[in-house]
Amino acid sequence: MSQPVDSAVSAVRTYIEQHRGAFLDDLAEWLRIPSVSAQPDHAPDVRRSADWLAAKLNETGFPTAEVWQTPGAPAVYAEWPSADPEAPTVLVYGHHDVQPAAREDGWDSEPFEPVVRDNRLYARGAADDKGQVFFHTLGVRAHLATTGRTTPAVHLKLLIEGEEESGSPHFRALVEQHADRLTADAVIVSDTGMWSEDTPTVCTGMRGLAECEIRLYGPDQDIHSGSFGGAVPNPATAAARLVAALHDEHARVAVPGFYDGVVELTDRERELFAELPFDERDWLRTAKSRGTWGEAGYSTLERVWARPTAEVNGIGGGYQGPGSKTVIPSSAMVKLSFRLVAGQDPEHVARAVRDWVPGQLPDGIRHEIAFSPATRPCLTPLDHPALQSVVRAMGRAFGAPVRFTREGGSGPAADLQDVLGAPVLFLGISVPSDGWHAPDEKVELDLLLKGVETSAYLWGDLAEHWRHAP
Amino acid sequence: MSQPVDSAVSAVRTYIEQHRGAFLDDLAEWLRIPSVSAQPDHAPDVRRSADWLAAKLNETGFPTAEVWQTPGAPAVYAEWPSADPEAPTVLVYGHHDVQPAAREDGWDSEPFEPVVRDNRLYARGAADDKGQVFFHTLGVRAHLATTGRTTPAVHLKLLIEGEEESGSPHFRALVEQHADRLTADAVIVSDTGMWSEDTPTVCTGMRGLAECEIRLYGPDQDIHSGSFGGAVPNPATAAARLVAALHDEHARVAVPGFYDGVVELTDRERELFAELPFDERDWLRTAKSRGTWGEAGYSTLERVWARPTAEVNGIGGGYQGPGSKTVIPSSAMVKLSFRLVAGQDPEHVARAVRDWVPGQLPDGIRHEIAFSPATRPCLTPLDHPALQSVVRAMGRAFGAPVRFTREGGSGPAADLQDVLGAPVLFLGISVPSDGWHAPDEKVELDLLLKGVETSAYLWGDLAEHWRHAP
Repeated sequence: MSQPVDSAVSAVRTYIEQHRGAFLDDLAEWLRIPSVSAQPDHAPDVRRSADWLAAKLNETGFPTAEVWQTPGAPAVYAEWPSADPEAPTVLVYGHHDVQPAAREDGWDSEPFEPVVRDNRLYARGAADDKGQVFFHTLGVRAHLATTGRTTPAVHLKLLIEGEEESGSPHFRALVEQHADRLTADAVIVSDTGMWSEDTPTVCTGMRGLAECEIRLYGPDQDIHSGSFGGAVPNPATAAARLVAALHDEHARVAVPGFYDGVVELTDRERELFAELPFDERDWLRTAKSRGTWGEAGYSTLERVWARPTAEVNGIGGGYQGPGSKTVIPSSAMVKLSFRLVAGQDPEHVARAVRDWVPGQLPDGIRHEIAFSPATRPCLTPLDHPALQSVVRAMGRAFGAPVRFTREGGSGPAADLQDVLGAPVLFLGISVPSDGWHAPDEKVELDLLLKGVETSAYLWGDLAEHWRHAP
Repeated sequence: MSQPVDSAVSAVRTYIEQHRGAFLDDLAEWLRIPSVSAQPDHAPDVRRSADWLAAKLNETGFPTAEVWQTPGAPAVYAEWPSADPEAPTVLVYGHHDVQPAAREDGWDSEPFEPVVRDNRLYARGAADDKGQVFFHTLGVRAHLATTGRTTPAVHLKLLIEGEEESGSPHFRALVEQHADRLTADAVIVSDTGMWSEDTPTVCTGMRGLAECEIRLYGPDQDIHSGSFGGAVPNPATAAARLVAALHDEHARVAVPGFYDGVVELTDRERELFAELPFDERDWLRTAKSRGTWGEAGYSTLERVWARPTAEVNGIGGGYQGPGSKTVIPSSAMVKLSFRLVAGQDPEHVARAVRDWVPGQLPDGIRHEIAFSPATRPCLTPLDHPALQSVVRAMGRAFGAPVRFTREGGSGPAADLQDVLGAPVLFLGISVPSDGWHAPDEKVELDLLLKGVETSAYLWGDLAEHWRHAP
């Protein structure tokens, strides 16, 4: 399927074609910096990566480009105000740190020596996330060059953190510290992907995350299962019964109040999900699993994108070594995580779990429960004007209908939503085969340039359709 | 309460009083040998202990006393046939190896330097099990001296193993190898205890033991609980649900067929158990537990002595370290042990568990299940003539009514029952405060000498009441 190409599109594509060589050379230079945030000996590289990016954004035209220190790795902040005071403000989020990588992990070439093979750029960070951050630089240049502007049509801000691959330990504090400078009408996260090369998609939300560890205590020390077995409560059994009670026979979470406030999928969203070319066998291969399982009445995609869950991430108690040891263990523990969807309040969920646990335990079992800081869910309605702009910009770039996905995982983007009060949209051109966190990470050059092109259309579209009230 | 002392009792007590000094000196000499079977550097001591015992049994009068080698530590075998060919044959079981012990573990004196304080003999092995083996030596001498016999009234055999504290790895093979020499009409196990100093008891049975490890496999590797959570089966959840399904709402084991063949408690046995001065608070202190739990309709003593159980000895899966890791684990495992009572067949129980597991697992979870070699339960009926002899002998020695207990644990005695086809009786004078496996292990000297006295009466009583058909 093709569609007529308008003159603006022609102009953007021509501009990109003329500048792609320099753009790719610059990106390769950045990819050569092994900015692995999880490895302390790469800390200087992460700093170098931040400095490099700030300088490059200055060179691109951003009047402000700063390195923001944190107690860990630095972030980069840049802004390019629009000459139009009524223009909306958009904050782009991404990260400049990368996962660890070594040739011997199974790479066909050096992970920090970018190479192009078969129109694919191979390097650690090519897709996650340097490539997807960097397409905005040529994107905004193309936007300016083809519209004759000297400033972007929107107030453009970039926040590119340096600890995403290490769990963003200082991100929320950073955002809170600089909240006045980061104010935005919408956040565009450029750290995700799309359905497939043939099916451009926009992600409209991420699940949130509440995590807890529950410790159960029985006898004061491991005791003999012969002398006492069958007559005292066993904390490992109690842990198992607690976990088993988490779900009812329809695989729904059985904690009273857990579903309070859940924003249900609309019929329209379910239709749109169902239109995606989803192959459950392929999905199971990706999940490395032998079967599906989940809440009755929902499809697999609905379960991972739009339904809250309770999962056991770890369980342990008693003797786990080789052979056997006939003890009633003194304690057991479970680590639970709850993925949350829009409308759920992590504090409310934590309270519901805390209230529910004691009633599941037999007399004689003490418990402790500790929740980690939670991540809120985020969801942008399909009819949100900024989301419509992303869809139109992407549709022009790809020449194909843009569909909708959500993300089952949870990320620091939710902090931006929380602190800044802005809706979060996800614009990514990476595809599942790009090998995030794996050897031979790559980005498809055609898709990378579609990302540039989407960025080039987006700012004008946003300004046109979503003006501030004067 | 006292009872008239007959002349035979007077004679036995006088004999014991005359020989107690030498008896205790000999026992102290044996206790000085640190025959710790679990510590390889003590292997020569375990051999020395066996040699010492064999020599002492010879000296006592046993015409045969041999050290039997095993691939591990040696056992001692002795026999003293009766001149009466129609006499029953009795095999005494005990062990000459001991638990590890070091002064710095909290002993008030050197564990291998026996001392008497407050009429208690303190040393590693004083109660478990050298003292309880050794009382038979003076017992049989008193039996002969006070009856004018030159051979015991029964064919007396002793098998004193050297690896009990290491799990008796070679015991069954040893018994099988020497089965023709070990044939007996009854086995007397001198490696247990009695209810309390004031309540002499005879143990009539031990529970058996079947153990298995079940491994559950989900995704081929740990997968992201955001990307896949809620839509694929989680093996940790499956393990928990499996364990939770082990018991029904009455805390009965829910595996179909598990209770097949169980010999139920008779009303008489339940009455006798109920007569024991059982204090649940004391018992809970010993169990280091905060509450009781178990099969509906049974008392705590009934639950640990006479009812089969299913216990989780270990459970594990996923991430158990500090903090959190949002994975769906690739695998999980549970270690289960089933205590069995008379009438239950370990093979049948294993089959029942194997048949039951698959139906508890969701599609997409593979499993493996492995049973270890089982220990059979043993139980001697209250009206068995050998048991009646033990009760009478103990009653004469203690001058108090003898009550009945059972043992919730499982032990190598069951191998003797299995291989030799003989009923197993338990004669022990140790009390719960003796500190088996703990610092300051001791034996009460008064009780030790009651053990000698019981042994002195037992052989004549057995021969009198339980003659072989000529």
